Amino acid sequence: MTSELSPFEIRQQIRAGNFTGNTSGLAQGFVQGNLAIMPKEWANDFLLFCQQNPKPCPIVGMSTAPGDFLLNDLGEDIDIRRDVPRYRIYRDGVLTEEVQDVSEVWRDDLVTFVLGCSFSFEEALIADGLEVRNITEGVNVPMYRTNIACKPAGRFHGNTVVSMRPMKAADAIRAVQICTRFPSVHGAPLHLGDPAEIGISDINKPDFGDAVTIKEGELPVFWACGVTPQAAIEQAKPEFCITHSPGHMLITDLPNSRLAVL
Amino acid sequence: MTSELSPFEIRQQIRAGNFTGNTSGLAQGFVQGNLAIMPKEWANDFLLFCQQNPKPCPIVGMSTAPGDFLLNDLGEDIDIRRDVPRYRIYRDGVLTEEVQDVSEVWRDDLVTFVLGCSFSFEEALIADGLEVRNITEGVNVPMYRTNIACKPAGRFHGNTVVSMRPMKAADAIRAVQICTRFPSVHGAPLHLGDPAEIGISDINKPDFGDAVTIKEGELPVFWACGVTPQAAIEQAKPEFCITHSPGHMLITDLPNSRLAVL
Repeated sequence: MTSELSPFEIRQQIRAGNFTGNTSGLAQGFVQGNLAIMPKEWANDFLLFCQQNPKPCPIVGMSTAPGDFLLNDLGEDIDIRRDVPRYRIYRDGVLTEEVQDVSEVWRDDLVTFVLGCSFSFEEALIADGLEVRNITEGVNVPMYRTNIACKPAGRFHGNTVVSMRPMKAADAIRAVQICTRFPSVHGAPLHLGDPAEIGISDINKPDFGDAVTIKEGELPVFWACGVTPQAAIEQAKPEFCITHSPGHMLITDLPNSRLAVL
Repeated sequence: MTSELSPFEIRQQIRAGNFTGNTSGLAQGFVQGNLAIMPKEWANDFLLFCQQNPKPCPIVGMSTAPGDFLLNDLGEDIDIRRDVPRYRIYRDGVLTEEVQDVSEVWRDDLVTFVLGCSFSFEEALIADGLEVRNITEGVNVPMYRTNIACKPAGRFHGNTVVSMRPMKAADAIRAVQICTRFPSVHGAPLHLGDPAEIGISDINKPDFGDAVTIKEGELPVFWACGVTPQAAIEQAKPEFCITHSPGHMLITDLPNSRLAVL
């Protein structure tokens, strides 16, 4: 599939079953989102968890009533049951299926959350001339569990997961400025420099994703990561939950620039 | 002198010769400025140098015509010949006198530049709850010559001088955000982390000011510094030049918040 298609056209291809891949690099300039869908009985706790932890869990959209599967605020004719290329279904906190359509398991009590993802700020960094190492090296961004506790909310709790991109100090300072404009896609970095300060023992062994090269004179720069809410969900073990499969995002009609607060 | 006096009242005390000290901590909330006064023949080059190097040389005000000694844009009844507590006079680049009044040596061809100073952003950092180590330890901020070349302009050239404040990484990130709002008082840091990357061989031996404690887990954070234009002036050796004596600033009527771009 070419990257020239509009978000709407890509979603139509996904809905038709013609595209089931990773959405990285597709629909340049448009917001892509992490997905979390759970029963109403759990949704209030999760909403509070996101509200309390906006850096790892920035909400860019949610369904307005339980059972709603149309997300018109995020894009034309979005049917959240069919427009994401790959879903994961969890039962009692255990991943049980990976599917391309969740119409069959949809329920009238499900509430949908769409959370900001790093694709948006990576695009802003690259547009400014900064290098994003995981993109240069063609791998998944390295992600690490930290000792930074999220604020607990109801049944949801856990530590923050971070993604890491190495940069020269001057570029890291510029990245802070750029990402500050985008609080709904994780905002400014949480940490930079010594990984041990946030409980990471080996920077070359990420807990998720792939290791990347850190060149001499570069600092590792750490952002709050959308894996944080997924980890909290796995710990909380709601009886039923749907997420996207990593890298297989919801592509919205929102321009990335629309998320800029300044 | 109490810190309760208004900027105008402090300047009147200075003009009357009742106060000749360091202005650090006076007139909280108001912009203080570095001073550079030189003959018209040199002023165009210097203006270009500042324009080319806005981080170390941010102009917050200048006289409108050669010989003007009133700076009404910066405050009520400012007479730049008498309202700074301590001046330095340079002849052919050599410091020849330190005086409390430059009325006697004033010339019809002198152009005045007032450049932003770190007092403004230190106040913003402290207001946000960050620690500024040189203030905690009651010493002058440590300053270092770097290998970061300024863009040359006419007869002015030289490397950037930086000031350093050690911080935890999360505070350094917050400091980048805060200082980005204040481009006319040096703006965001230039560098953080390894001092050797910008040509500083021993962080415990500043070239100007005093060393401060760097605690475990802290990064040195470096800002462009107002000593940069002074060093460029000393190298360029204009036949006549007046600056403030370090720490003895012009206190203006401008609220610090007026300098915020956002």
